[in-house]
Amino acid sequence: MTSPTSSHSLKSLLNPRSVAVIGASEDQTKFGGRLYKTLLQHHYDGAVYPINPTRDQLFGLKTYPSVTDTPQAPDMVVMALPRDKVKDEIAACAARGAKAGIIITSKFSDAGPEGLALEREVVATAAAHGMRLIGPNCLGLISPANKLVLCSSPAVNVPQLIEAPIGFISQSGALMGTLFDRSYGMGIGFSHCVSVGNQADLELNDFVEFLIEDERTQVICSYVEGIKTPQRFVELARRARAAGKPWLMVKAGATDDGRRAAYSHTASLAGDFAALKAICERENVVLMDDPLDMLSLARAMVRYPRRQVRNVAVFTTSGGGGAITADQLSRAGVGLSTFSDATMAALSEHYSEGQGANPIDVGGRKPDATSDIGAVTAELALADPGVDLGLMVLTTAPDVPGLTRQMADGADRPAAGGKPTLYVMLPGRVAAPAREFLVQRSLPYVDTLAEAMAVLRGWKAWLSYQEPAAPVRPADMAATPVPAAGTLGEAASKTLLGQAGIPVNIERLVRSADEAAEAAAELGFPLVLKVVSPDIAHKSDVGGVALNILDPDDLRRRLALMQASV
Amino acid sequence: MTSPTSSHSLKSLLNPRSVAVIGASEDQTKFGGRLYKTLLQHHYDGAVYPINPTRDQLFGLKTYPSVTDTPQAPDMVVMALPRDKVKDEIAACAARGAKAGIIITSKFSDAGPEGLALEREVVATAAAHGMRLIGPNCLGLISPANKLVLCSSPAVNVPQLIEAPIGFISQSGALMGTLFDRSYGMGIGFSHCVSVGNQADLELNDFVEFLIEDERTQVICSYVEGIKTPQRFVELARRARAAGKPWLMVKAGATDDGRRAAYSHTASLAGDFAALKAICERENVVLMDDPLDMLSLARAMVRYPRRQVRNVAVFTTSGGGGAITADQLSRAGVGLSTFSDATMAALSEHYSEGQGANPIDVGGRKPDATSDIGAVTAELALADPGVDLGLMVLTTAPDVPGLTRQMADGADRPAAGGKPTLYVMLPGRVAAPAREFLVQRSLPYVDTLAEAMAVLRGWKAWLSYQEPAAPVRPADMAATPVPAAGTLGEAASKTLLGQAGIPVNIERLVRSADEAAEAAAELGFPLVLKVVSPDIAHKSDVGGVALNILDPDDLRRRLALMQASV
Repeated sequence: MTSPTSSHSLKSLLNPRSVAVIGASEDQTKFGGRLYKTLLQHHYDGAVYPINPTRDQLFGLKTYPSVTDTPQAPDMVVMALPRDKVKDEIAACAARGAKAGIIITSKFSDAGPEGLALEREVVATAAAHGMRLIGPNCLGLISPANKLVLCSSPAVNVPQLIEAPIGFISQSGALMGTLFDRSYGMGIGFSHCVSVGNQADLELNDFVEFLIEDERTQVICSYVEGIKTPQRFVELARRARAAGKPWLMVKAGATDDGRRAAYSHTASLAGDFAALKAICERENVVLMDDPLDMLSLARAMVRYPRRQVRNVAVFTTSGGGGAITADQLSRAGVGLSTFSDATMAALSEHYSEGQGANPIDVGGRKPDATSDIGAVTAELALADPGVDLGLMVLTTAPDVPGLTRQMADGADRPAAGGKPTLYVMLPGRVAAPAREFLVQRSLPYVDTLAEAMAVLRGWKAWLSYQEPAAPVRPADMAATPVPAAGTLGEAASKTLLGQAGIPVNIERLVRSADEAAEAAAELGFPLVLKVVSPDIAHKSDVGGVALNILDPDDLRRRLALMQASV
Repeated sequence: MTSPTSSHSLKSLLNPRSVAVIGASEDQTKFGGRLYKTLLQHHYDGAVYPINPTRDQLFGLKTYPSVTDTPQAPDMVVMALPRDKVKDEIAACAARGAKAGIIITSKFSDAGPEGLALEREVVATAAAHGMRLIGPNCLGLISPANKLVLCSSPAVNVPQLIEAPIGFISQSGALMGTLFDRSYGMGIGFSHCVSVGNQADLELNDFVEFLIEDERTQVICSYVEGIKTPQRFVELARRARAAGKPWLMVKAGATDDGRRAAYSHTASLAGDFAALKAICERENVVLMDDPLDMLSLARAMVRYPRRQVRNVAVFTTSGGGGAITADQLSRAGVGLSTFSDATMAALSEHYSEGQGANPIDVGGRKPDATSDIGAVTAELALADPGVDLGLMVLTTAPDVPGLTRQMADGADRPAAGGKPTLYVMLPGRVAAPAREFLVQRSLPYVDTLAEAMAVLRGWKAWLSYQEPAAPVRPADMAATPVPAAGTLGEAASKTLLGQAGIPVNIERLVRSADEAAEAAAELGFPLVLKVVSPDIAHKSDVGGVALNILDPDDLRRRLALMQASV
């Protein structure tokens, strides 16, 4: 509706020095009562102005009959009034000089044309005084980083907020509360959570921009129904990438049924999912199916920034668990590492014949194996150069907490190189103390193999991103001669395409293994190797194409193979 | 190794009148100590003979120096001796007249040729006296139906076993313990759980046969690495089907990595997964990816035997949750019901415009809606003839337990027709009392949408099974003339195929809508309708094929369409 705010001003909006709670009360059956109590409970250190014309004080704080009576203009106001009273109250707040307001009330643009018209009037009323709005039809915000909770969900009724560098912007208030609750139980914290509702004024992208610049946020999570400003979305994705901050997203409306449901929820047009998916892939925004998995991935990314997760070593307390895990990794497209001979030899000192391979079942240890077998195994396997990540699949065993601690200790030893670990806690009650230990040690865990696979898939997708090549654009189209009839070679075809403004990949023509190595050093890996010969039009038919070359040795080996076969 | 036991004798083997615990002790760091204590703890009502040459009594029970000293021959013995002592002990037990033994010890056929040779000797030693064996390399059994726990897993250290008509046969002991633990936390019980280990004597199929005949088991769950007797597997699948007992299976070794891992675990050859999958589809054994999902499905099937689950109504406390659920149902191939006009009209009395559609967000109710909106909504939607199942997707909301109770009450009302419901409890802590309520009411729930989708997919697969047509086999091949060159009609082709012993589907040639209706009444639905004409070889090119006709109305409508288009 209005021009995008700068994230600088949003930063101060989201960190107000004072908050007025319209309709504050002590009655916990009412929205204003729960919201007010929650705000006080989490030690917000700005001024709080409860607004209630019928009371002198509430929970010991002086109460004001209206926002015009507060000692200073509040930076932020929050309200859940009946819909018909919202516009007048916003007018009063804006006139008083409030900088921002949260409108919880629903039935605006989410309830048809009449509500939409009213919503526009409310935004215009606020904008006339420079006041910005969050909502309507939202659940407010939860900012552990600012000790600021403006949200009535029972989810925020916790003894202590957990602060962690994970920001979460949600187009669904109930999902925000739900995920906050579920995350809290798993020891996952946040910097800021914002429920954007109908996005009448401030929209999802405004908050994403804020999170990109926010130094207390490292990973951005989002639940999205519709994107209001797609071009800005692309720009922000690039800025997030440049800042090294992963942006994860669950998008409702991937299917026809989901699209209809999203529309009836916040009147968001979900748009074409295939197009969004293509954009997300190009811009390295990680799309996930499930919001819980998104938060588990965020926790893992925060714990292990920028580590590789291509190939996995599985440690387990169950041979069966190892077999199922191997199946699921294969299906998820995540590699099960093959241990080096040195690793196998070192493990064979502790494991029975054939048991020191990946996945490793700790139950396969020798009868006289060392008592800290969990630590030794984790250290040895993670030290293997072909292993990027340790996946600890714990089943019910005599001492799950002790073994979990051993594995964590082993992974902490210098030889393990600080490589990431992810724990899959399959037991229920038996693993409760182990889960607590993992939270204390800030080690990421999930409760099912399916969650682990979703985390690894998303993590790998983010890490394996390749910047798209810049398109080669023509200075002068006329300089390109139209080719004669016949087959055009690859290099000539690409020149022609590039000159017409169509992006082509970068290439170098090389004549020997040494030239290839030199070009590779310049271009970086992975690479594709192709034969160039006027005699060969269909290169792959004759073994003249080698894909996904990963390093200099691979390049030499596969060039030799190609020279032999073509 | 030996001939299959009859399930009649297995029934008495698994319900022994006396158990000897070899190596019993009070030391809870030792296997024999944990196992012995657990057996006493769960009030097994047969005789218990602790065997320990160094003690007079253990936990108040008289102890015997050896199995030869017990007052009677024990029906069952259980042992976790070092491998080298197993054969002699089995020999002593067999000679004493023990009917069955459980060998926990590993490193037999799971540890190479030498172990395999020893394993065969042990089985032969037992068989010489008619003694049957479970294991080796197993975790024993847990039979809530018999109050018999012969298992040392910490998972069975619970105040009270939960009995439910779910049997579970596992080729992995650790997974059995883990799933028992996780299930216990969700209120899921069992009739019998058996860990089969290396299946040296009694094998998976023996126990499946027992469960098919066991009157306290309705649903059979299995974790399988390799199938020893495939033909018997097929026979048992048919018997389970005939008995109306769903058989669910998680199979390790679906991928190359999984196959290798399964082999190193119990030396099982996982076999070709595609072939097994085809057999399971043909025989209606439901393959699942995750063992936890398998148990959640078993609980739902036990609660709602033989109810349809094709089309789902979604009730939620979050529009966003509804949208994601709609997406996931689409991906899982489960239908989102379209409410009838009558249902929509009834809901519109309680919901704002456009909000009384599927998925229904309870938050879309009218401001003055009835206070038991959850009950009214569940009743109205489940009463819709197009709805088979209610999927309740609960997010964090002010009174999740109260709303959950309302939904359960509404689903219980007569108009709702006893249709199945499945609750998806997305919140953490906030939903804990609601989870307890669901367990008390025996209502199935899961904790994530992914689990719900796996349950619905598997459930639908089981219910939508169609008995394969019996093949028509030739009495006399010579009677079939070899056709002349040219195109052979469908009926003639099928006759020829059938006479050659190749199964063909059953068909009737009809000449009118009435004849079609009559044939349909005889054959049952679903049906395929095809045009028969010597002028038409490629029927579907001309609109001459109609698939998946579901009822008589559908048949008449689509026959008329075909007559108009061909």
